[in-house]
Amino acid sequence: MFSKYDLIVVGAGHAGCEAAAAAANLGSSVLLITMNMGTIAQMSCNPAMGGVAKGQIVREVDAMGGYSGIISDKSTIQFRMLNKSKGPAMWSPRAQIDRMRFAEEWRLALERTANLDIWQDSVVGLLVKDNTVYGVKTSLGIEIESTAVVLTNGTFLNGVMHIGEKKFGGGRTAERASTGITEQLVELGMEAGRMKTGTPPRVDGRSLDYSKMEEQWGDENPGKFSYTDTEVSTDQRCCWITYTNDNVHETLKEGFEKSPMFTGRIKGLGPRYCPSIEDKINRFAERDRHQIFVEPEGWNTCEIYVNGFSTSLPEDVQFKALRLIPGFEQAKMFRPGYAIEYDFFPPTQLSLTLETKLISNLFLAGQINGTTGYEEAACQGFMAGINAHQKITDKHELIMKRSESYIGVLIDDLVTKGTEEPYRMFTSRAEHRLLLRQDNADIRLSPIGHELGLISDERLAKVTQKVTDADALVKFTKSQGIEMTDANPMLESLGSNTLNQNVKIHSLVGRPHIGLQDIIKVSKPLAEATKVLDKETIEQAEIKIKYESYFEKENEIVAKMLKMEDKEIKPDFDYNKIVSISKEAREKLFKIKPRTLGQASRISGVSPSDISVLMVYINK
Amino acid sequence: MFSKYDLIVVGAGHAGCEAAAAAANLGSSVLLITMNMGTIAQMSCNPAMGGVAKGQIVREVDAMGGYSGIISDKSTIQFRMLNKSKGPAMWSPRAQIDRMRFAEEWRLALERTANLDIWQDSVVGLLVKDNTVYGVKTSLGIEIESTAVVLTNGTFLNGVMHIGEKKFGGGRTAERASTGITEQLVELGMEAGRMKTGTPPRVDGRSLDYSKMEEQWGDENPGKFSYTDTEVSTDQRCCWITYTNDNVHETLKEGFEKSPMFTGRIKGLGPRYCPSIEDKINRFAERDRHQIFVEPEGWNTCEIYVNGFSTSLPEDVQFKALRLIPGFEQAKMFRPGYAIEYDFFPPTQLSLTLETKLISNLFLAGQINGTTGYEEAACQGFMAGINAHQKITDKHELIMKRSESYIGVLIDDLVTKGTEEPYRMFTSRAEHRLLLRQDNADIRLSPIGHELGLISDERLAKVTQKVTDADALVKFTKSQGIEMTDANPMLESLGSNTLNQNVKIHSLVGRPHIGLQDIIKVSKPLAEATKVLDKETIEQAEIKIKYESYFEKENEIVAKMLKMEDKEIKPDFDYNKIVSISKEAREKLFKIKPRTLGQASRISGVSPSDISVLMVYINK
Repeated sequence: MFSKYDLIVVGAGHAGCEAAAAAANLGSSVLLITMNMGTIAQMSCNPAMGGVAKGQIVREVDAMGGYSGIISDKSTIQFRMLNKSKGPAMWSPRAQIDRMRFAEEWRLALERTANLDIWQDSVVGLLVKDNTVYGVKTSLGIEIESTAVVLTNGTFLNGVMHIGEKKFGGGRTAERASTGITEQLVELGMEAGRMKTGTPPRVDGRSLDYSKMEEQWGDENPGKFSYTDTEVSTDQRCCWITYTNDNVHETLKEGFEKSPMFTGRIKGLGPRYCPSIEDKINRFAERDRHQIFVEPEGWNTCEIYVNGFSTSLPEDVQFKALRLIPGFEQAKMFRPGYAIEYDFFPPTQLSLTLETKLISNLFLAGQINGTTGYEEAACQGFMAGINAHQKITDKHELIMKRSESYIGVLIDDLVTKGTEEPYRMFTSRAEHRLLLRQDNADIRLSPIGHELGLISDERLAKVTQKVTDADALVKFTKSQGIEMTDANPMLESLGSNTLNQNVKIHSLVGRPHIGLQDIIKVSKPLAEATKVLDKETIEQAEIKIKYESYFEKENEIVAKMLKMEDKEIKPDFDYNKIVSISKEAREKLFKIKPRTLGQASRISGVSPSDISVLMVYINK
Repeated sequence: MFSKYDLIVVGAGHAGCEAAAAAANLGSSVLLITMNMGTIAQMSCNPAMGGVAKGQIVREVDAMGGYSGIISDKSTIQFRMLNKSKGPAMWSPRAQIDRMRFAEEWRLALERTANLDIWQDSVVGLLVKDNTVYGVKTSLGIEIESTAVVLTNGTFLNGVMHIGEKKFGGGRTAERASTGITEQLVELGMEAGRMKTGTPPRVDGRSLDYSKMEEQWGDENPGKFSYTDTEVSTDQRCCWITYTNDNVHETLKEGFEKSPMFTGRIKGLGPRYCPSIEDKINRFAERDRHQIFVEPEGWNTCEIYVNGFSTSLPEDVQFKALRLIPGFEQAKMFRPGYAIEYDFFPPTQLSLTLETKLISNLFLAGQINGTTGYEEAACQGFMAGINAHQKITDKHELIMKRSESYIGVLIDDLVTKGTEEPYRMFTSRAEHRLLLRQDNADIRLSPIGHELGLISDERLAKVTQKVTDADALVKFTKSQGIEMTDANPMLESLGSNTLNQNVKIHSLVGRPHIGLQDIIKVSKPLAEATKVLDKETIEQAEIKIKYESYFEKENEIVAKMLKMEDKEIKPDFDYNKIVSISKEAREKLFKIKPRTLGQASRISGVSPSDISVLMVYINK
């Protein structure tokens, strides 16, 4: 019934969709298997994409030819650049999303992707021979063959949902769980663990009193995620902010004895940085209120996502506590929040390509690897799809460096350090975050996407032009002066010291709160020089001018680090030969099989002295 | 957590949505409970609304203030008035629908309806005391009270899906079944049965060769369902027609030994008039081909519904046979067809208000009553919602007459005769179908909708004006003559005999193929008289002129019949008193408890002589 595919992708969430699209666009024949074609690319939790560090990831995926940025732009109902008051390394795009639009746009995008077939069915097992996967087996009893398989099962593997003392099998509210895969992989020798995540109640927006909340609008001049020509929505929907209070907390505490979290019924660890409201009350007992973001789920629906109120307390406790929040006095719930436990595979069992070390041609991406978040899932899926294609076609692996992308940081962290709790990306995880900015993801990564074949010549040329133009503009500002008389009124109005003599434009841009756009207004030569440049190019030049010295220092550090990263360790390196390293280090090195000395140095339990010894052996 | 509602509606398909909206719009506080807010108003089977007799039902529901017509209009991708070549009693509007738009528009319409709350949960039991329902119990263990309950469980009650020899529990593909309700109602004394229906495979439109099929476009001047001011879509999508052949049939037969239909694994009876392809091959062995309608599932999706190919044969047989159909040589399936068995409650257990006779305030609507079809479900839900509200508020029951609506025919058929197999509406079921036309549903039913409070004064006034204007126009045509010289060129061009003398316009309209619009072009007085009238009013006048004598005869018959219908039988009438009727008649009369002598006369097993005897007793 089915011919053999190059790649089968199991699951059509953020990870599965990106994996399928990437491999298909590279030329692999791909079959995407989903339990329900009606729920492709569902946002199971919050109706938003991006945010701190996460927005950078979306832009990285977009810069390399993934779809998440484009789909997000098409379904954005409100856009904000977070941390605009901090340095550009912290700027993070975030969009509120129309949940229904997002799912529909993803589905249509997949339907328009060549080489990509879809099959609605549930995968219950893998076809494995000689430790190599060669297809899947479905609930219909069909065996479908493929050269490689990407598993993106999200929270569906043996998923169990909890609300108070009640529990239900299922992968997501009102959806079935998936069984069979965990059991088989454990049988084959892989280690599985259990994690937990949760989601807040959804409420009827018609029942809320917004006059008691603070309005939160998006940016006046909204941006977008994709470097392609997606449109910026000029319209936007308002969100709101309100707060819990002591009464809310006391009411929630009444449910603690029935909490699956506190009674030990939930064994899996939850996301530390996306805690439930009961967790927050427990861990931050000193705080008398917590922020609640009131987020519409789309352009037209009255369904509201109560961001900050994730909970698995009994539904009546959720309800009672919710109604004590200002603006929620008459709130009607559509459904209660819940916690979900699911199987994951500790990601130290993966190589940096996201292929499992145990089973050849089997790749894992998304929550199945112990991560949390749409963006984290999407980028893993994207990389797994690419690497599966590259392996099938005997092309080079694509391993992203920590110094060139958050994606590289994420995968290296997972594979090298593993994770005990749902892994979420933060800017602080990236030691070179100064270089990994949302404004330069295209500059950093488009060449890689182009080399793979996911980015067109035209698109790459645009990026190259942007770099050339920005550099030329920086140079121009170094040679072009500005008259005191032209600059001073502007400086005064912006609260900056006035000039006593004419200076180069470059030195003015070095000042805080003074931007190229301000100077363009008062300098005819600059206005002339920037006339044909787009906003992004000018911004890029400005960032270069303002942070040049920091970037240079950072680049020097990266260069040093890369020496370690370039020291490759063969996969079959026999650590037993080295007697002078610790037993723990030897065990860990055997398990992780680091590709480079750099990666080895990041393994917990491997000391700097172990690395020194190792370096001697490698240099031999 | 919940205050007591006036009405709880269980299920959010066509029946549940109409029930909830109708009762809420009448002023009842309504809670609509659905297992998944993401799948409200899913079209589980074909992406179309209306059709022969069914289109009339949609217009009837619309004329009384239901939503189905409006939602269909908003999501139409192609519209055709079927049977335009036959008499107006046979004209039937039918629209291809964008499945995703339809579901979204229904959901948004419900969200905009006042008095209507939504709760995502699964109802596992009813709260019943003293044979009266007073609420429901959900899978979360919550008891929610209400004065009345409407059950619209569709195919979900103990649903089991079959594909070849495999079977899966579930209410619809990829959705859970619902358990508990059947068991409880049977425990309480109701009789439950088992029915079966099926659906064809869905295929990837990109894999089809349309050049081998016949195009089927919609009407050049498309109409719409709703009498409200919904827009007519000027754009449309093409459908296609292709045919099975002997090879297809032979291939399908290879799967017969694994067919759940033929091996007896499926016990429930399927819809006779919507048979599976294997049924068609079996029952019509003499036919060497069957028509296949190739229907897109929406404006943009490539998903295709293979209308006419419903099947529960093994998926590999489906696939092999499908590929032998012209245009399907390279077809890729998204998912196989399947059959589904589910519980229903023989509808003779209902009164004409759709309330169960056994349990007070409990109403059933849709497939749970043994019907098939979106339109049949929608109108039952609409009527159950209305009658639940009327009962709650101590207002009169709304029982539609067979002579005034298809809705009346459907409910009377169900309740009086019951059904052994999924009941589908046909024009032939309506003895007064000449009067039950799609063009006059507003005239027939808007007064009823208005009296209930579902139709505004303004809307009723528009209908009244239409009737007045049409009558005046008819009168005008009787008095206004037309010159031979004006009429003859037109008559000649339309292939009609030319005139030898001047005649009244009325007599020309009586001719076949000559319409008022033709005469308007050549008669200045008629053009003047119709200048301000809309298309529908002129059409109404034309139909009146052409079929006046038939209508008069039909109305006389109705008047006679109504005498029987007006003879009421008290619910507690003791049939044991009547010794001279047959035992069978007595048993049936006890069971059905007909409201009128007319209804009694339609009960199978009650003979005309039984009715004569009964009449004597009633007249006493």
